[in-house]
Amino acid sequence: MGVVSRPVPRVDAYEKVTGRAKFAADLYFPGMLYGKVLRSPHAHARIVKIDVSRAREVPGVHCVLTAADLPAARSWFTYLFLAEDEVRYTGDAVAMVAAEDPDAAEEALKAIEVVYEPLPGVFTIEEALEPGALQVQDYAPGNIVRNSHWPVRRGNVEEGFARSDVIIEREYRTPFIEHAYIEPEATVAVPDPVDGSVTVYGSVQNPYMTRRYVAAALGTALGKVRIIQQTLGGSFGGKEEVMGLMCGRAAVMAVKTGRPVKMVNTREESFVESAKRHPFRLRYKIGATREGRIMAFEAELVDEGGAYNSQAQFMNWRACVHSAGCYEIPNVKVDVYAVHTNNVYGGAMRGYSSPQVIFGQESLMDELAEALGMDPVELRRKNALRFGSVTITGQKLDDQPVNVLAVMERVLEEADYFNRREEYTRQREKGGPRRRGIGMAVSYRGCGLGAETADATGGLVSVQEDGSVIIRSGLTDNGQGLSTSHAQIVAEELGIPLSKVVYQRVDTSTMPDGGMTVASRGTYTGGRAMLLAARKVKEIIFRGAAELLSCRPEELASSDGLIFCSSDPSKKVSFEEAVRHCLFRGETLTQLGWVVPPELPWDRPTGQGKAFPTYMYSCVVAEVEVDTETGQVEVLRVTAGHDVGRAINPALAAGQIYGGIVMGMGMALMEEVELHKGVILNPNFDSYTIPTSLDMPEMKPLLLESEDPVGPFHAKSLGEPAMECVAAAIVNAVAHATGRRVRSLPANLEKVLLGKTLARS
Amino acid sequence: MGVVSRPVPRVDAYEKVTGRAKFAADLYFPGMLYGKVLRSPHAHARIVKIDVSRAREVPGVHCVLTAADLPAARSWFTYLFLAEDEVRYTGDAVAMVAAEDPDAAEEALKAIEVVYEPLPGVFTIEEALEPGALQVQDYAPGNIVRNSHWPVRRGNVEEGFARSDVIIEREYRTPFIEHAYIEPEATVAVPDPVDGSVTVYGSVQNPYMTRRYVAAALGTALGKVRIIQQTLGGSFGGKEEVMGLMCGRAAVMAVKTGRPVKMVNTREESFVESAKRHPFRLRYKIGATREGRIMAFEAELVDEGGAYNSQAQFMNWRACVHSAGCYEIPNVKVDVYAVHTNNVYGGAMRGYSSPQVIFGQESLMDELAEALGMDPVELRRKNALRFGSVTITGQKLDDQPVNVLAVMERVLEEADYFNRREEYTRQREKGGPRRRGIGMAVSYRGCGLGAETADATGGLVSVQEDGSVIIRSGLTDNGQGLSTSHAQIVAEELGIPLSKVVYQRVDTSTMPDGGMTVASRGTYTGGRAMLLAARKVKEIIFRGAAELLSCRPEELASSDGLIFCSSDPSKKVSFEEAVRHCLFRGETLTQLGWVVPPELPWDRPTGQGKAFPTYMYSCVVAEVEVDTETGQVEVLRVTAGHDVGRAINPALAAGQIYGGIVMGMGMALMEEVELHKGVILNPNFDSYTIPTSLDMPEMKPLLLESEDPVGPFHAKSLGEPAMECVAAAIVNAVAHATGRRVRSLPANLEKVLLGKTLARS
Repeated sequence: MGVVSRPVPRVDAYEKVTGRAKFAADLYFPGMLYGKVLRSPHAHARIVKIDVSRAREVPGVHCVLTAADLPAARSWFTYLFLAEDEVRYTGDAVAMVAAEDPDAAEEALKAIEVVYEPLPGVFTIEEALEPGALQVQDYAPGNIVRNSHWPVRRGNVEEGFARSDVIIEREYRTPFIEHAYIEPEATVAVPDPVDGSVTVYGSVQNPYMTRRYVAAALGTALGKVRIIQQTLGGSFGGKEEVMGLMCGRAAVMAVKTGRPVKMVNTREESFVESAKRHPFRLRYKIGATREGRIMAFEAELVDEGGAYNSQAQFMNWRACVHSAGCYEIPNVKVDVYAVHTNNVYGGAMRGYSSPQVIFGQESLMDELAEALGMDPVELRRKNALRFGSVTITGQKLDDQPVNVLAVMERVLEEADYFNRREEYTRQREKGGPRRRGIGMAVSYRGCGLGAETADATGGLVSVQEDGSVIIRSGLTDNGQGLSTSHAQIVAEELGIPLSKVVYQRVDTSTMPDGGMTVASRGTYTGGRAMLLAARKVKEIIFRGAAELLSCRPEELASSDGLIFCSSDPSKKVSFEEAVRHCLFRGETLTQLGWVVPPELPWDRPTGQGKAFPTYMYSCVVAEVEVDTETGQVEVLRVTAGHDVGRAINPALAAGQIYGGIVMGMGMALMEEVELHKGVILNPNFDSYTIPTSLDMPEMKPLLLESEDPVGPFHAKSLGEPAMECVAAAIVNAVAHATGRRVRSLPANLEKVLLGKTLARS
Repeated sequence: MGVVSRPVPRVDAYEKVTGRAKFAADLYFPGMLYGKVLRSPHAHARIVKIDVSRAREVPGVHCVLTAADLPAARSWFTYLFLAEDEVRYTGDAVAMVAAEDPDAAEEALKAIEVVYEPLPGVFTIEEALEPGALQVQDYAPGNIVRNSHWPVRRGNVEEGFARSDVIIEREYRTPFIEHAYIEPEATVAVPDPVDGSVTVYGSVQNPYMTRRYVAAALGTALGKVRIIQQTLGGSFGGKEEVMGLMCGRAAVMAVKTGRPVKMVNTREESFVESAKRHPFRLRYKIGATREGRIMAFEAELVDEGGAYNSQAQFMNWRACVHSAGCYEIPNVKVDVYAVHTNNVYGGAMRGYSSPQVIFGQESLMDELAEALGMDPVELRRKNALRFGSVTITGQKLDDQPVNVLAVMERVLEEADYFNRREEYTRQREKGGPRRRGIGMAVSYRGCGLGAETADATGGLVSVQEDGSVIIRSGLTDNGQGLSTSHAQIVAEELGIPLSKVVYQRVDTSTMPDGGMTVASRGTYTGGRAMLLAARKVKEIIFRGAAELLSCRPEELASSDGLIFCSSDPSKKVSFEEAVRHCLFRGETLTQLGWVVPPELPWDRPTGQGKAFPTYMYSCVVAEVEVDTETGQVEVLRVTAGHDVGRAINPALAAGQIYGGIVMGMGMALMEEVELHKGVILNPNFDSYTIPTSLDMPEMKPLLLESEDPVGPFHAKSLGEPAMECVAAAIVNAVAHATGRRVRSLPANLEKVLLGKTLARS
C-alpha cells in the first residue's frame, strides 16, 4: 500500500493547529443580524401569555417571533422550533429575536414578558412508569416512547434458567451525559432575497437531516435549502436535533428580515437545550451451569427519552442487538424500551446505547464469574462468539472472521493481565488505603447502520485536467478525520500522491443525501462509496492509458502518479497525461460511487434477523488505583485493542482510541448531568467535570487487522467501539481493587467510598 | 407534451424583472478591496520602465503589482495577465492595484509611472500580409495566426470553372464588432486564508475555461480554484478571455492581500480590452452554367486575429465548413486563415464566423443571380442541399431531414416574398427618393461543436425526498434561458410540474468540466445530458413505483406528478411517494448524464470529413426602405424561419430570433469598432451605435420542427443561427431597393448614399 495504512497527517491538520480553520461562529456576512432564543425556566408549564411588544421596541431589534409568527411548521418530528401553549422541558424555546448586535438581542429577550402556569412533571423512569402517571406527550400512552420497544425472543428462557446452576439478578444505572464537544453550536443563515431560499452554514453533524428541519420551518422545498457544513469542533452525535432547531430558527428569522442571521449558543445554552446520552436502567437475570456455560439471559433495559422524540425508536434496536454482549447464548428474552419525562431529551451519542449496555452487561459478566467462583476471563472464553456461532438475533457468523477471542487474548497479553491481576489481588489482601485493580471488558459491534435503516451513501470523485482530484461525500468530517481517510482511499486506488486530492466540505446541493454521519459508518460505508467512485474513474483512465501505451488495461498498475505496464514498467505514462487523453476524447472523469445497502430482513416481534453484514471486535483492559479513604480513582493504564479490519490511517485510528478511552473514563468516573425537577444543576464545565490532561492514563492502542469482506480495503468501524468497553473495564477494575461493585455510573467519590448505588432522586 | 414545447415563463423571469438578480457587481464581502488595471495607451511599444513606488503610498492601497510580482504564469495561452517588456495592443495591462475603495485604486493608477518607447505597428490585414511586415508575435511568422489555416479541397475547381458559363469574382469586408452586452465584466475573488485556494464569482461565460486562467495565474491545482457563475447580463461569446484575465488578476491580488478583491470594468475598459468579432476579408470566385448550376467555388477568407491568440485556430474551421453556404457544389477550393495585427484581438461572437461568411456568401449568390439574369431564389432552389446531398466537406446528408428548401419556401410564403419583390421592383422603376426593397438569405449550420473538438457535457439530476429536483449543468445560463429549457426537459421526462425543478448555477467544484457554453450547444448537447440523467433517475423511480403498484415498469407513464399504469390509470402513485420508496430502500436518485461525443474523423489537408452529426436550417427575408437622399435604411419587416428540430420553449426560441434579428441589423447597418493606429475611437455607446427600440422592425419568427435523430426531444440549435442570415438579407434588400451593392459592412449612411465600398484605412 502506498497511501492507505500509513499514518499521514490529517489533511486539515495545518488549518486546525494554526487556528485558521473557519468554524461557523467565525463567519461574518454583511448586514448580518444576531439571533437569540428565550427558553423556558420551567420543566413543565402552560404558557398563559407572551407579550413581545416591549421587546420589539428595543433599538437594533429587527424581529421578535413567537410560535404564532412561524411561517410553517412549529415542530419537526416532535422537536419544537417554538413552543406554543405548553413547555415540556427547560430547553423549550418560547420566543426568538434577531438584532443588530448580540447585546440588543439579549436586551430584547429580557423585555419579553411570558406568563407561565407551572405544572407538575415526571422526572425519573420510575415516575414515568407509575400507573396513572402524568402523560408527558399526547401520543405516548403510559409515557412509552413511540416505537421504542424492541424485543428479542430466542429459545426458552424458563427452560434455560431451569438448566442453570447459578442464577443472578442485577440492576445497573447510567445517567444523562453531555457530549462536551469543544465548540458550542453555531450557525449563520443567509437568505436569498430573490426566491426565498436559504443557505445555512453551521456546525452541523448531519446536513441532510438539518435540511429537513429548515425546509419544514420555512415550508419550502428541500431543493431550495442549502446546508454547508463548517469545520466542526466535535459532535459525537450531539449536533443533530439542536442544530436542526437552531438552523430552522435562524432561517426563519433570515427570511423574515431579509438579512443573514447568526446564532451561537453559549455553553449554558448548549447544555440546557441539546440532547444527551440516554440514562439507562438495566435489569438482568442470567443463569449458567457451574462450568460457566451461560444458559439463559433475560433483560429489561429501560432508557429515559426525556421530553421529546429522543431517537429511542432507532437506538433501542441497537441496544437489543448488542444487549447480551459478544456471547453465544441459547435462551434469550430481552425487552428494551424508553420512557418520556420532563427532562432534557436523549439523543445520539458515541455508541448509540452500547456504552451503557456494555457497561451493564460486562459488569454482569464479572458478577456472574464471581458468583461462579470463576475467573472473569475464563467465563468469557467459554461463551464468546466464534466462527460459526449464532448471535442472539439468530445470525450465523460463518461469512467473516469472528475475532472476539483473538482480540481479547492479544489485549490481555499486551496488558500483562494475568500477572497483574494476581499481583493486585495479593496486594489487596495485604490491605492499606491505596489499592490497585485490573479489569477488562470485551464487545462486538455491528458496523454501519445494519438492519436499522438502509446503509446507503455516495462518494464523488472528480478528476480535473491537471490531475488534481476533487472528492465529495454526503457524509461529514466531524473531526474524526473522514476528509483524510477518504482522500487516502482515493489516492491509494488511483495510485497518486495524497497531495493531489482536494476534499470539499459537505454541501447538500452538490451531493445526494448520504444519510447521517453516524454509526461509525464514515469509513466503512462512506469509504466504500469513495472507493467505488475511484474504481470507476480508474477504469476509464486505465483504458486511456492502455491506448497510449499500446497494451491491455488489465496489464496496468499505478503508483506515485505513474501508470505503468506491470510486465514492463518502462512502458509508463503519467497520471496527468492519461487524464488529459481521456478528457480530450470527451470522456468524463467525474463518477459517483453509490453503496447499495444489503438486504437485512428483521422480524420485529422476535428480534430475529441478520442485524449487520459485518462486526468488529474490541477488548479493553484498565488498571486503576483507588484511594479508599477518599474514593478517588486514578486510571493508571488502559490497553485497548480493536479488530478494525484495516486501519486506513493508523494515526487517526489511534486518535480515535485515545479519545474513546478518555470519554469512557469520563463516563466511568465523573460525568453526570445533575437534574432537579428537570432543571440542569451543572450546565457548564465548572460543575460538570470531564477528564483533563491531568487525568490521562498511560494508553496503549492496538490495531488488529482482518480480512473483512465488505469494507474498503477491509476497513471496518472504530469511532464508537473505541469507547464502548472503557467504562465497564474501569468499573470492573475498581471492583477488583476495592471488592465493592459500583452499579450506578459515574463511580464518583461518594459511590466508590460508600459503595452505595445511588439512583438519581 | 406537458412541459416541453410550451412557452412557459423563464425560471429567472421574476428575479430579473424585479431587479433582484445578483450580478457579480452586486456582490459584497467583508473586507473587500477594489481592483483596477492600468492599460497601455500605445498599440505597440516597448516598456522601458515602470515605477510603482508612488502608487504604493497612496492611502488605502493594499497592493500594486507588475508582471515581475506575478506569482506564477504571466500569460495563459498567449493572453497576458500583465505585460512585461512589450505591449501589443491598447488593451494590454501593465500594472494592477487593489485598494480600499475604487477612488483610491484610480488614484494609485494615476501615480504609476510607465515609460514606453512607441514602436511601429501593423493595423490591417493587408499590412499584416505584406512581405517583410513587422512580426506581431514571435511564434507567428508572416503574421499568420498559428494553426488558423483551414483548407477545403474538393473536386477540381479549374475544371469546374472551365465548365462554367458565368464566372464572377467579388470581395466583401466585415469590421470589428463589439458584443455590446448590457453588463460590463465583473468579478469578486475570495481567498481562503488557509490553503491559498480561491473562490471566484464572476460574469463568466465559461467557468471551466476561466478556472484554467486562474489556476495558471496562481500556479495552483484546478481543484483548488472554484468558479461560481453569477447571473450574466449577456455574453454572446464575449465573456471568455477578458473574464479569464480579469478573474486571474483578481485572484492574484486576493491571495496577495488575503482579502476579497472585486473588479468591475467601466464600459470603456470593456471596449478597450475585450475580444471582438473578427473582421473578415472575403474573396470569392464562383462559376455556374447558364441554367444556374454552380460548378466551382473558390474562396480566400482572411480574418484579422489582432494582437493575441484570437480563437481563429478553432473558429476558422467552422468558417471553412460553412464557407460555400447550404449548396451542393462539386468543385471547391477554400482557404481560411487569420493574421495578427496590433489591434484588439478577435474572439468568439455569436455565430463564430458564420454571420461574416454568410454575409459574403449570400451576397455573392445574389450577385451571381444578377450576373445570370436569374431570380436569386431560383438560383438557390437549383443548388440547395437536399436529402442525400453531399456537402463541400464530403458529408452525405442521408441520415437526417435536410430542410433548406422547406424552410426557405415557408419563409418566402409567410413573407409574401414574390409579390413584394415584384411590387418594390415596380416602385423602384418609378423613381423617387424613398425606395423599398426585399432580400433574402438562407443558411445551414452544424449543431454543437462537431469535429472541432469533443462535444461532451454532463447534466446532473438529483431528486430530493420531497420530490423537488435539483439540476446542475457544466454549461451556463448566459441569458439564453438554459436554466428554463433544461428544467423543462427534466420536468417533461419525469412527468412533474416545472415548479418542482430547482436550477442551480454553475459551480466548477460541483460538476465535471462541461466544456464551453458555445456553439449553440446549450440545448442540443447540454439538454441531451440532462435528458440522459433524467432517464436514469426515472428508470429507478419507475422500478420503485412498479413495486408499489404491482405492475411492470414498462407499463408505467407519468405526468403532472403522478405515475400511473398506462393500461389502468386508476393504479397510480404520486411521484413523491415513489421517490420516498426508492430512497428508503437506499437507492440514489442522483444521476449524472454524460453525452459521449460521436466519432467525427476530419482530414485537415483536404477539409474532408463528417463535420457535424446534425444541421439546422434557416432562412431570413428582410424588407427595407432606403432614403436615397440621406442613405438612411429603415428595416420594415423581417421574417425569420428556422428548422430547430423542436422548440423546447417556443417563447424563448422566439426571443432568440428577435435578438438575432436586432443583432444582425446592427451588424448590417451600424456597428463597427473604429480604430486609428490601434486606438479604439468609439469605446462607448454614444459613438458606437447599436439598434434601439426605435429601430425595431416588424418581426415574424417561424419555428419549423423536424425529427432530428440526435437532440433532446429532437431539439437542435438556434442561438447563433438566429442572427447569421440577417445582415446578408438586409444588404440584399438594400441592393434590391437601390440597385447598388454594399460590399463592406456596415451599410451605413455614407456607403448606402455613395455606393462606395470603403475598407478601413
